[in-house]
Amino acid sequence: MLELFYAPHTCALASHIALEEAGADYTIARVDFRSSEQRKSEYLAVNPKGRVPALVTERGILTETPAILAFVAQSFPKARLAPLEDAFAFARVQSFNSYLCSTVHVAHAHRMRGYRWVDDPAAIAAMQKKVPQAVGECFELIEREMLTGPWVMGGAYTICDPYLFTLAQWLDGDGVDIARLPKVADHRRRMAERPAVRAAIAAELA
Amino acid sequence: MLELFYAPHTCALASHIALEEAGADYTIARVDFRSSEQRKSEYLAVNPKGRVPALVTERGILTETPAILAFVAQSFPKARLAPLEDAFAFARVQSFNSYLCSTVHVAHAHRMRGYRWVDDPAAIAAMQKKVPQAVGECFELIEREMLTGPWVMGGAYTICDPYLFTLAQWLDGDGVDIARLPKVADHRRRMAERPAVRAAIAAELA
Repeated sequence: MLELFYAPHTCALASHIALEEAGADYTIARVDFRSSEQRKSEYLAVNPKGRVPALVTERGILTETPAILAFVAQSFPKARLAPLEDAFAFARVQSFNSYLCSTVHVAHAHRMRGYRWVDDPAAIAAMQKKVPQAVGECFELIEREMLTGPWVMGGAYTICDPYLFTLAQWLDGDGVDIARLPKVADHRRRMAERPAVRAAIAAELA
Repeated sequence: MLELFYAPHTCALASHIALEEAGADYTIARVDFRSSEQRKSEYLAVNPKGRVPALVTERGILTETPAILAFVAQSFPKARLAPLEDAFAFARVQSFNSYLCSTVHVAHAHRMRGYRWVDDPAAIAAMQKKVPQAVGECFELIEREMLTGPWVMGGAYTICDPYLFTLAQWLDGDGVDIARLPKVADHRRRMAERPAVRAAIAAELA
């Protein structure tokens, strides 16, 4: 049995959707960000980074979305969530997910987590001002160079899709008009219709 | 034949060391950051992100350090650079590398690449001021929670090691005193003695 620690509206949704798509036997445990539960000792014993997601397995706890996504794909091969037998194709999947975590999510994080990198309130405000541009440029690159269609990697649905969907959920809040990203918009719309996606979102907001 | 696009003193060193450790047949191609070659059309055709590393393979081009490192490990299994037959152990490797790319490298990047997230010069200066603290906290977590020793994952040398070594090269410039990180310091010292590491560094600076 797997247990996923999550908070609503965070990148943990990607792992949650992947577990649901995989048909995994899992439960979810909510971390209350409003009361800063992620920084309390009980949760820091689960994830010393004080962040979500964290996936509790029989062998130990895993963190970091790209690692969890690949683990889910490898642990449930019948769900075919990644090209596991092809090192190059798998690397393309991982490259996409790595870009999301190291560049796209980071550009987004400057809107509400600027204190990670700066103390001065004026600098935090200056960071927030640039979020629409920085996030917008990331998604323009995804639209132009990465999103093959209909799914990220082409005909096959992979662990790239729930991750892209999760970050695309934040576009409106980040001040990026999704209308100028027709492929991303189409992807987001089709993802939102998948039973696994609906189930994961409903469970997080319940 | 593989070809690695790199620039000296960048995270491309991690992929370079991994290729060397793997005994891969590869060449390296230098991208001149001083003349902003990474933003010119010739290089953007290789990597539209305008960054290094980029690994040219017979099947296409791969970017993003964690993806390249896993690809090298999977492509050269005899080098035993990752626990390829164990999804959980592989996920731990990937989790470590994902933390390096999405959190540690990003904390470092606020010293010289602040323009990615802000336009105001005062805000860029404010970012630079916090780099020693932000990078220092990342490495304290690595020291305390992640670096098993003697290698990152314990007794087995993996693709985590060249990546940690690469980022630990930047500690002095980031204003973090490595003396307060004895395990990281010991790791860096032992890495620097490995023939593959010496060969990669010498080739980059030649």
